[in-house]
Amino acid sequence: MSSASGREKICIIGSGNWGSAIATVVGRNAGRLDFCQDEVNMWVFDEKIDTEEGEIMLSELINTRHENAKYLPGIKIPKNVIAYPELKRACEGATLLIFVLPHQFLPKLLPTLREHADSNCRGVSLIKGLDFDSTTRKPILVSKSIEQSMGDGFRCGALMVSLRLHVQHRHSRLSAASSPQGANVANEVAEQHMCESTLACDFEDRELNDRTLAIFNEPPNFRVSRINDVAGAEVCGAIKNIVALGAGFVDGLNLGGNTKAALMRVGLLEMKQFCTTFFTGVEPSTFLESCGLADLITTCYGGRNRRCAELFARKQKESHTVDCGQLWMEIERKMLNGQKLQGTLAAEEVYLSLKSRQLLDVFPLMTTIYEIAFQGSPIDEITKGIRVADISSSSLISKV
Amino acid sequence: MSSASGREKICIIGSGNWGSAIATVVGRNAGRLDFCQDEVNMWVFDEKIDTEEGEIMLSELINTRHENAKYLPGIKIPKNVIAYPELKRACEGATLLIFVLPHQFLPKLLPTLREHADSNCRGVSLIKGLDFDSTTRKPILVSKSIEQSMGDGFRCGALMVSLRLHVQHRHSRLSAASSPQGANVANEVAEQHMCESTLACDFEDRELNDRTLAIFNEPPNFRVSRINDVAGAEVCGAIKNIVALGAGFVDGLNLGGNTKAALMRVGLLEMKQFCTTFFTGVEPSTFLESCGLADLITTCYGGRNRRCAELFARKQKESHTVDCGQLWMEIERKMLNGQKLQGTLAAEEVYLSLKSRQLLDVFPLMTTIYEIAFQGSPIDEITKGIRVADISSSSLISKV
Repeated sequence: MSSASGREKICIIGSGNWGSAIATVVGRNAGRLDFCQDEVNMWVFDEKIDTEEGEIMLSELINTRHENAKYLPGIKIPKNVIAYPELKRACEGATLLIFVLPHQFLPKLLPTLREHADSNCRGVSLIKGLDFDSTTRKPILVSKSIEQSMGDGFRCGALMVSLRLHVQHRHSRLSAASSPQGANVANEVAEQHMCESTLACDFEDRELNDRTLAIFNEPPNFRVSRINDVAGAEVCGAIKNIVALGAGFVDGLNLGGNTKAALMRVGLLEMKQFCTTFFTGVEPSTFLESCGLADLITTCYGGRNRRCAELFARKQKESHTVDCGQLWMEIERKMLNGQKLQGTLAAEEVYLSLKSRQLLDVFPLMTTIYEIAFQGSPIDEITKGIRVADISSSSLISKV
Repeated sequence: MSSASGREKICIIGSGNWGSAIATVVGRNAGRLDFCQDEVNMWVFDEKIDTEEGEIMLSELINTRHENAKYLPGIKIPKNVIAYPELKRACEGATLLIFVLPHQFLPKLLPTLREHADSNCRGVSLIKGLDFDSTTRKPILVSKSIEQSMGDGFRCGALMVSLRLHVQHRHSRLSAASSPQGANVANEVAEQHMCESTLACDFEDRELNDRTLAIFNEPPNFRVSRINDVAGAEVCGAIKNIVALGAGFVDGLNLGGNTKAALMRVGLLEMKQFCTTFFTGVEPSTFLESCGLADLITTCYGGRNRRCAELFARKQKESHTVDCGQLWMEIERKMLNGQKLQGTLAAEEVYLSLKSRQLLDVFPLMTTIYEIAFQGSPIDEITKGIRVADISSSSLISKV
């Protein structure tokens, strides 16, 4: 499983803020790892950039100045990272594709990747989120969508970087508007601040797994642990934001650390339960990895979902409205400069998915959070969600 | 396994603040459960109490006014809880002994209990802490000490009530001195505020386990889940305080939510690793119970160990001293009115235990916390402890 040279050929699909950030890590690693070709290709969705010396194409800027002045200004991208505006040339003979671009671009790109990548190529996705089948409402992993589109036994893993915590840590005094989240996190990675991540992949070949880890892991600052459980890791990343809404409700009610800890515990159990309900091969230990427990803790103490939900709770206490959608929009406008919250979207999708399977009873916390967020249930109901779930916690635990 | 009447005879050994609080719950439950004798006995270490109407013995006060005016003032103890100053009478024919008294009183009492309790009697301990054999330095469970002293196949479980969180929640603005921790927590239980607990017992008889749970569980406010794993639950309660010291160091350095979440995650893994190293029958799921994860979260965000360790870190940053013992004493004097911290005691015991088995390498976080707390290591080393431990996290996870 290597290119003609016998060495890994890495191609990064995406050149935004995160794509450029991961390119700094992967570029450095490829440069020193024997089993990798020195050059790392990066596909760039090209655009004209205004510079002091006039207009220049982004790909050219990266290849000459070794900096993505638009999406990751001030950070040097290693010289062995070569930008290509043409996808076909970028992915030619690639043995490892790293997907780091907005989800909706995938369908257009995958046929070309399929045709031109190495026949033994594999992938790692950094795309966060979870799809839901519009008919069956079953959750679908992004990595699995990629596998299916690529066909021919293509395997895709996921790298889950704990986003929220880094933003929180360094930029907690900035407003969301002046501090777009992705940017700062990516900057932290690029600037080599300490960052924990989980690589979930199971390429059914120990050497290949080890190699993939080595391509991403750059201790001591960008520290990656590998697990096999792709479904567990990807789902954690998506649905932890729902639990964070609950944490925000608890904070908005000033219920204190007691209730919040109970909520986080029940939330982790329901995350686990959700994974095992819909996916096979889920490992209980995944939930104690960085992508599980650590990410949940920081999201419930730091992130924007918690923050917006706290405001939602306070506003609901002041004057209760059943028009929750309107209230969320106001909060998003005020706190996020109009960007959409991930937690509320996920809460709705998960609720519909569970409802269609008559599983709401098994997920009292997720259900209660949805009912508060969208159906006008009183905020105080949140403790009911925790309590009910708690009754079934042993069965939740024992099932996995 | 019942007394002459065929019903459970419950005896609470202890009548302090916690003993009186649990008596309110157990008394109410025994009064309504068919399989229990109505009367619950409570052994009282008797003493004279000054009242408006002159001196009165504590046991008499409880039996006439149904209140422990000294240790749990203002809370009604159910009338079916009968105080006995004489241990022999209190425990006569008991089928369930509830141990809720300072650890050091046990040796004097156990021979009498052994002689007079029912031959099929079992026990549940509410005593927090962990002993260490002075020669082998092996940790010893309080419940196991009780079992050994009682002999004849006596089985003892443990009820782990999340102490710290309730104090934090209601009394966060009071100083430790004016708000003795146990008192407030016990009051919360007695006043029927929401409180989560874990009952760990394995009486090898499903009915007996269910009965024991029913005797303690009083939903929705005093909510108890039962697990089999006594060792895991008892050890969590004792060594989570060490992790809380680490959390305080992180807070004192202003390292933010990122590093703190990573520390808590590694801490939970080392707690698990410690349990499996020294005890058999430890279940991974224990660490996701209230006694594990929820208690750890609240201890690391709320408790006195975290708070004192934060101050320790700030003082060490101001002017570094190698005389750590002296600094801890000053902090205990200032913050706890001279009471001893549990985290530092536990850190020392655990360190010596691990060192004698050459296991320090396998517990980098516990080791680093000890070295900072007692050997003058710079506070900044805490991130080294998290990082090193993180490398081995997958092996830590996979071992259990």
